Amino acid sequence: MAHRIGQSTIMMDRPPRILSWASAVGPKEAEGPLGKEFDRVFTDPYLGKSTWEAAESELQRQALSMALRKADLTPDALQCLFAGDLLNQCIGSTGGLGGFEIPHAGIYGACSTMALGLLLAACMVEGGIAQQAGAVTSSHFCASERQFRQPLEYGGQRPQTAGWTATAAGAVLVGTPPSGVCIRGGILGRLRQFGVTDANNMGAAMAPAAADTILTFLQETGMSPTDFDMIATGDLGKVGSRLLRQIAEKEGVDLSLVHTDCGLNLYHTDKQDMHAGGSGCGCSAAVLCSRILRQLREGTLQRVLFVATGSLHSPTSVQQGMPITAIAHGVYLTAE
Amino acid sequence: MAHRIGQSTIMMDRPPRILSWASAVGPKEAEGPLGKEFDRVFTDPYLGKSTWEAAESELQRQALSMALRKADLTPDALQCLFAGDLLNQCIGSTGGLGGFEIPHAGIYGACSTMALGLLLAACMVEGGIAQQAGAVTSSHFCASERQFRQPLEYGGQRPQTAGWTATAAGAVLVGTPPSGVCIRGGILGRLRQFGVTDANNMGAAMAPAAADTILTFLQETGMSPTDFDMIATGDLGKVGSRLLRQIAEKEGVDLSLVHTDCGLNLYHTDKQDMHAGGSGCGCSAAVLCSRILRQLREGTLQRVLFVATGSLHSPTSVQQGMPITAIAHGVYLTAE
Repeated sequence: MAHRIGQSTIMMDRPPRILSWASAVGPKEAEGPLGKEFDRVFTDPYLGKSTWEAAESELQRQALSMALRKADLTPDALQCLFAGDLLNQCIGSTGGLGGFEIPHAGIYGACSTMALGLLLAACMVEGGIAQQAGAVTSSHFCASERQFRQPLEYGGQRPQTAGWTATAAGAVLVGTPPSGVCIRGGILGRLRQFGVTDANNMGAAMAPAAADTILTFLQETGMSPTDFDMIATGDLGKVGSRLLRQIAEKEGVDLSLVHTDCGLNLYHTDKQDMHAGGSGCGCSAAVLCSRILRQLREGTLQRVLFVATGSLHSPTSVQQGMPITAIAHGVYLTAE
Repeated sequence: MAHRIGQSTIMMDRPPRILSWASAVGPKEAEGPLGKEFDRVFTDPYLGKSTWEAAESELQRQALSMALRKADLTPDALQCLFAGDLLNQCIGSTGGLGGFEIPHAGIYGACSTMALGLLLAACMVEGGIAQQAGAVTSSHFCASERQFRQPLEYGGQRPQTAGWTATAAGAVLVGTPPSGVCIRGGILGRLRQFGVTDANNMGAAMAPAAADTILTFLQETGMSPTDFDMIATGDLGKVGSRLLRQIAEKEGVDLSLVHTDCGLNLYHTDKQDMHAGGSGCGCSAAVLCSRILRQLREGTLQRVLFVATGSLHSPTSVQQGMPITAIAHGVYLTAE
């Protein structure tokens, strides 16, 4: 039985463990510093499909297939799959996962999707609702650009505060094997809105959400940043990461020793022309489902707080001048 | 502790109960047969806001506020809120619920959202993850029309197979009070796709998903349709309801005595010019959060299977000619 600390933090009394994980990425991600860590690299951004949306669906299908194979499971061994993505009505997920016939729970958390899905999957396993459950998400640069910004052919100039949507997918399976990376708990984030209206500066919109989630988790658990080897936010980028540390510092919490951001890990920020850094549901998912989980399995990392952040705007809300609401969900992972 | 029957069905060993519910609707819904059953009716489709999207957010805010008030709870008594809607990136929910400061889990299930959220909320309570949890969803005719079909000003002709998106929201709170409507279990649906590409015929796209969920639930539990007073699907409308019964009949299951469809209950189908019937996340949510839950509380209904269905297409997927994927989630409710 899990128990609550405060309103937001969930701690698992019988922590579920991660059965397997997998990542599938596009060519640009393969050229980044984690290039050799991904399970599958596609050099064709269409993945042989006729649309970018179908390509994104294929990324999810590939990531989930590989995760199932690694765990030596067939799809019917999963009683619940949490899946979502950035595309309108989450067609990236629903277009890609039908063939598995797994009971499906659609989620929407923008770039926080992997943390939300993984935490909910862990809750279902810990609560006895599922023996095994999974979480999968993706993003695709080309599909996202035309939906959220401009058609690629327009060749619009991107401001330096803008991120680069990763072409990537990650899948994680959760169960109760005798050993493996533990999901000790986590935190469901709250909606945060601080008046940012610029969809090309999502780091600024999301930093307060990340700060709220991290500081609430630390406060509710009585832990401090140095109790972790790593607090990995998802896709705050350069601007948002700086803001997060400043907000935390104002509250007397020094994150500088342990904080890293997935958006600054996926690409060579100095030479891959990413501007503020990587973003998109697939960004933190792919970083988690490669180096972070590998290092936890190997024991190089012992305790990680994975905090994926989401900017919950739509093109319509931006055009209407609505301030961006953001959220961050956290998952507390340990090596054993 | 909950337990599984088969891959999909969840049965609660300590069934959570419904603490309260509330509905808020627009003027057209108030003129329907359930008009007097809703908690709040807005005669202005803008709800005093400047956009339809903001109006939809206000519907969710109102529904949740009223549900909290009825249960005599403040927002901090909820440890988890599942919320979603039809708008791109679920801005209906995220724009409306920030002020409550409740840990937020965004979900996407199109018109199946209320069943998905209610089932997940029940799982969180039954699994000990939350003491109290909630589910809320909405839809708004005007916001949906311009996003999924045409701007209202265009005055496009609607085919007879098309549904009418309800301007409505519903909220349900779940906990463990000593008495009240019980959530005995439920079923997470699977993604179903049978080649329907016409977004003006969602009933046909969703009927196979509803059939799969209902037949799987009956099979996995060993129950028969007459074990229920009502099997209420969400928004199959005239076309989809007929198809559902035909599919079930082919499998040797007669649903005709107990089946009703929320999309055929919200409006006077003969005189309100709804064509195939009501639809939208708010449709089944508002029908559940008015007559169905009232009748369960009063004991007029004893056992209900609430099966909300979702058509998981986007305008992009329809323009690309992709077949519509659908899903249906079920919640098994009893009077005590």
